[in-house]
Amino acid sequence: MSDDKTNENGVSRRQMLIGAGAVAAGAAVSSFAGWVEQAQAADGSTEKWPWPYVKLDPQETAEIAYKEWYRIFCGGAVISSVIGQLREKVGGPYKSFPIDGFVFLEGGQVGWGTICGSPAGANIVANMIIGPRIAGSAVGHHIAADNMDFYSKASMPVFVPKNPKIDPSKIVHTVSDSPLCHISVGKWMKESGLPLKSAERKDRCARVAASSAYRLVEMLNAWHDGTYEKTNDFSCSKENGITGQYNCDDCHGDNVPEAPGA
Amino acid sequence: MSDDKTNENGVSRRQMLIGAGAVAAGAAVSSFAGWVEQAQAADGSTEKWPWPYVKLDPQETAEIAYKEWYRIFCGGAVISSVIGQLREKVGGPYKSFPIDGFVFLEGGQVGWGTICGSPAGANIVANMIIGPRIAGSAVGHHIAADNMDFYSKASMPVFVPKNPKIDPSKIVHTVSDSPLCHISVGKWMKESGLPLKSAERKDRCARVAASSAYRLVEMLNAWHDGTYEKTNDFSCSKENGITGQYNCDDCHGDNVPEAPGA
Repeated sequence: MSDDKTNENGVSRRQMLIGAGAVAAGAAVSSFAGWVEQAQAADGSTEKWPWPYVKLDPQETAEIAYKEWYRIFCGGAVISSVIGQLREKVGGPYKSFPIDGFVFLEGGQVGWGTICGSPAGANIVANMIIGPRIAGSAVGHHIAADNMDFYSKASMPVFVPKNPKIDPSKIVHTVSDSPLCHISVGKWMKESGLPLKSAERKDRCARVAASSAYRLVEMLNAWHDGTYEKTNDFSCSKENGITGQYNCDDCHGDNVPEAPGA
Repeated sequence: MSDDKTNENGVSRRQMLIGAGAVAAGAAVSSFAGWVEQAQAADGSTEKWPWPYVKLDPQETAEIAYKEWYRIFCGGAVISSVIGQLREKVGGPYKSFPIDGFVFLEGGQVGWGTICGSPAGANIVANMIIGPRIAGSAVGHHIAADNMDFYSKASMPVFVPKNPKIDPSKIVHTVSDSPLCHISVGKWMKESGLPLKSAERKDRCARVAASSAYRLVEMLNAWHDGTYEKTNDFSCSKENGITGQYNCDDCHGDNVPEAPGA
């Protein structure tokens, strides 16, 4: 059974061989029957990981996410841009994953300003495809951290769509230093002087979703090729004894409390 | 077609009649065949809402969530406690929803301290069952806000399991005033003086997940009965012109910035 051993990227040798052959031959969906059987059991279970994956074009994915933002907003758009393509190209478990159910990720979950839907959606996608860390691979876990790290540190929005609804020169760029919607949108509104309901703010968020989808697919493709390496090693619980992000003094100022037992 | 009109709770008259009859008769899973057909189309799509729902026992659901926390942590536990039961009692779209994929919700998404997995998981469940607001009912959206409102204002953990792993008298209660993991766990750690890795903190979080599942099922049952009413009317974007939670000065102090256009 050594051929079916799962490597550190959660991809079995057998899958890699099948995948390489199928992609090289430009094979039709039916070629993935074996994968689908593995990923979606007869009882309909989708809890066998990793789900079959074929490499996607980051640019094309980002264009889809940009358009989808105007239908199902940030979290839904990122999920749709990847899962939607894989529904067509692979089928299997992607067909039953309810993309449109994730509209509520908008505005940091129904407008409460918690985690932005773009990294939240990207985290869902990575963990649906690669699986949870308890299923044998920690790559989905690491990509989630990388999604949030990228989102926090990039000068957003990074992506410029082919046919932007708003002149790109009217969209200022800001660094959120946080994966939270309230902080990311708040910093952008402060810099631009534009309100939440402005067309520019909406297009900025559509491009943030597209940027997040682009980066996510780069990482998923690298994972599929066996070349993914996590871009950050941050663990707030290890460093500070509590869950959290990397920049304590942004909120706490000089008065960062010490966690019990830290 | 008036019999198939969807009411404001997203439940069609036909579904309510079928549901009432099926529950009253203690009917077996096969009685739900009509629902399943409606909720999961031949192509495997689960994007027809609402998904078939039968009322669950909040106490039993919370006990499941408490136990599941020790396997798949906060977000996974809340999702498993509801979706897992509905897999057995209904089948259909619940069978293909990948519960275990949501382990990454732990620690506010892989330890980054953003939204706690308990409300994040509860928001997912409500929106998978009732559907997104673009599908005709805003109840999933409202229940998500209520999940976060309950989580923020309750003296947590509310739920006491039948067979607690830790003596309940050793678990202090705190009000987070936020749906964020970092703030909720941080306030509890400050009050208790106990570290993140303590058995008490873990059991506290398991009970928070159970408390969230209990409240969620109360609301889902009310929605199913047509008696759900949202418990809060808060909209930060309407009141303050930005996404966010209700207590601006908790973070901003006396220096709450005014949003452009607010």
